[in-house]
Amino acid sequence: MKFGGTSVGDIDRIRSVARRVKAEWDDGNEVAVVVSAMSGETNRLVELCKAANPMHDLREYDTVVSTGEQVTVGLLAIILQSMGVEARSWLAWQLPFNTSNSHGNANIDNIDGSEIIARFETQDRQVAVIPGFQGISPLDRVTTLGRGGSDTSAVAVAAALKADRCDIYTDVDGVYTTDPRLVPKAQKIDRVSHEEMLEMASLGAKVLQTRSVALAMRYQMPLQVLSSFENKPGTFIVPEEKVMETADVTGIPFSKAEARITLNGVPDRPGTSALIFSALGDAGINVDMIVQSQTNENQATDMTFTVTDTDMDRAVSLMESRRVEIGYQELVADDKVAKVSIVGVGMRTNSGVAQKMFRTLSEKGINIKVITTSEIKVSVLVAEEYLELAVRALHSEFGLDV
Amino acid sequence: MKFGGTSVGDIDRIRSVARRVKAEWDDGNEVAVVVSAMSGETNRLVELCKAANPMHDLREYDTVVSTGEQVTVGLLAIILQSMGVEARSWLAWQLPFNTSNSHGNANIDNIDGSEIIARFETQDRQVAVIPGFQGISPLDRVTTLGRGGSDTSAVAVAAALKADRCDIYTDVDGVYTTDPRLVPKAQKIDRVSHEEMLEMASLGAKVLQTRSVALAMRYQMPLQVLSSFENKPGTFIVPEEKVMETADVTGIPFSKAEARITLNGVPDRPGTSALIFSALGDAGINVDMIVQSQTNENQATDMTFTVTDTDMDRAVSLMESRRVEIGYQELVADDKVAKVSIVGVGMRTNSGVAQKMFRTLSEKGINIKVITTSEIKVSVLVAEEYLELAVRALHSEFGLDV
Repeated sequence: MKFGGTSVGDIDRIRSVARRVKAEWDDGNEVAVVVSAMSGETNRLVELCKAANPMHDLREYDTVVSTGEQVTVGLLAIILQSMGVEARSWLAWQLPFNTSNSHGNANIDNIDGSEIIARFETQDRQVAVIPGFQGISPLDRVTTLGRGGSDTSAVAVAAALKADRCDIYTDVDGVYTTDPRLVPKAQKIDRVSHEEMLEMASLGAKVLQTRSVALAMRYQMPLQVLSSFENKPGTFIVPEEKVMETADVTGIPFSKAEARITLNGVPDRPGTSALIFSALGDAGINVDMIVQSQTNENQATDMTFTVTDTDMDRAVSLMESRRVEIGYQELVADDKVAKVSIVGVGMRTNSGVAQKMFRTLSEKGINIKVITTSEIKVSVLVAEEYLELAVRALHSEFGLDV
Repeated sequence: MKFGGTSVGDIDRIRSVARRVKAEWDDGNEVAVVVSAMSGETNRLVELCKAANPMHDLREYDTVVSTGEQVTVGLLAIILQSMGVEARSWLAWQLPFNTSNSHGNANIDNIDGSEIIARFETQDRQVAVIPGFQGISPLDRVTTLGRGGSDTSAVAVAAALKADRCDIYTDVDGVYTTDPRLVPKAQKIDRVSHEEMLEMASLGAKVLQTRSVALAMRYQMPLQVLSSFENKPGTFIVPEEKVMETADVTGIPFSKAEARITLNGVPDRPGTSALIFSALGDAGINVDMIVQSQTNENQATDMTFTVTDTDMDRAVSLMESRRVEIGYQELVADDKVAKVSIVGVGMRTNSGVAQKMFRTLSEKGINIKVITTSEIKVSVLVAEEYLELAVRALHSEFGLDV
């Protein structure tokens, strides 16, 4: 069971969490709980580090910010005990929860769950309470997994304990076909494959961290996303063979945090693409979509790519500083764009899905600026003002409306 | 170097601490720093534990409250690095800093300072930043040393590192002959023996924890108490042979937090004292002074003892519940009393000191209710309203006025 920051925001909420844990435990289950820091706490600690020095040592940053989760595990263990549930907290060094040495953004290496399992098997069935987000490095320093790493911690702990399931409690009651704030007719999905969820998470569905879904997929660990505040089943994320064939499209994720940069009149010669994209990569700017127009009669081409809107200004400066080298004529940047995607494993066997998407958008007069596809998704970039219209039209067309 | 909670109360103050550390380091010293939690932080964490459950598990309490110091060590290390001083934090489990298993009030067993010493000896002379107040148990759980344990941590670390000196930075500039808020003519003491400081701390001088002074005495570790905010020498606490013979009395500590309980008409038979004091001891009530009057013609005696004022009500209830068993006639309790003491190694060789004290108080018309003595101190209990008069008169009589 994993509970995020808002679910453990104060003592009363931690008490609610404890009741959820007790209910599972009363049902005869063996339970490990992974918790985040109380909401606001990680930000407070990050701000202290920044105030100390904006260029702080990430090893010491990890020492400071990991305390947020340490507080929550102690408090949850105390409350569980007060309800008659045997519980204890396990800090990363006590398990150990081993990670790489990449402070601030560490990768999980392995988790020793043997002592937790041994205690599951005693009469007390002791509940393990584990801080998300943190680990220890090969040099025995505290590490953190990066923001939102607690979901990933939970999946990794579930895998280490060979859990039957990993339940991610959050402030929504499941994964929806698209964001219900934009499309009131959006539906909660009962069951979705890891692969689809991975696409949806990486294409803008914010309910789960992409990284945690990828880890669950690797270990074939069933996940459930459900509400901390309501008592009803959520969305199950399961191996593909456990999802019955359904509609062509499972969900319509979207993202407004996109920006498009076009370099017009780029000379079509070997090495130009490499020049552009290695410059961006070296600066730590992730490029998402890329499209290159056909070469015109002047042996020039237009190169379009997208980055997150927060990276746009840096990407533009970088391209301008390399203008002579790259040899483009004109740079056009636009952050008033949005990416809309359709995701579904049904696309593998049904070839008309992409065409149906393009036709639907065209009928609404929406111009498609860039297209990318994979086996189970199609993404298009459109002007941000058309986002809502595009998502609603597709949601309806692919039979997802309530 | 040890800095308490007010010295590290915010980022600016931690920066001042870092400057003090850098100054020592720039002088060519090898430096370990022990820090408390930022002021208010430990209280906040204690309140969270109480809100979770007033009868919380002390192992989990320790996990929660120890985070306060963990935050400070990370921040101080970051700031030292920003000033060009190589520094790293060492959590209790990283050293390790081993303690007993008495959660919430653990005793220090041993500290492995070998890695810190090894890093002192490299070219960087890396500064070690260590959280006070915390350790790990033989079962690898986080422990805390009890409130104010950071002074004790500092002395223990100094001993483990075979330091030349342990400097305790605080919000006063040294140890005074008595509390300057009560006696404006009080003087800062330049040099005092461990033994005298131990008496003064346990008799009410609040500047140092009794426990930390006892540890310093055992290891013959020189201490200096000095101000975090001013740049001048403080009070040195040193082995007795390093203190030149001076006045008979070094200091006049006092305490208002006293209460006196008298049982009148206690039958003088074997076992009565044991009955009274084991009942109090079992209830965790510390008894300080004890005096028994001479047995009268009815084979009865009066038994007077003192407890802290916060324990008075519990002690009274306990005595009342045992009234028949003990067989006393009447109980009188009084928390309007104060204890005034004179402390000095000079008393060992100069026999007239106690008499001089009694005569001085008598001349001022102050009635002495209870007296206790040791080799280097005399304590008397007086009515609280006479406290100021008593301390000022003694301060003057023993030549301590500025």
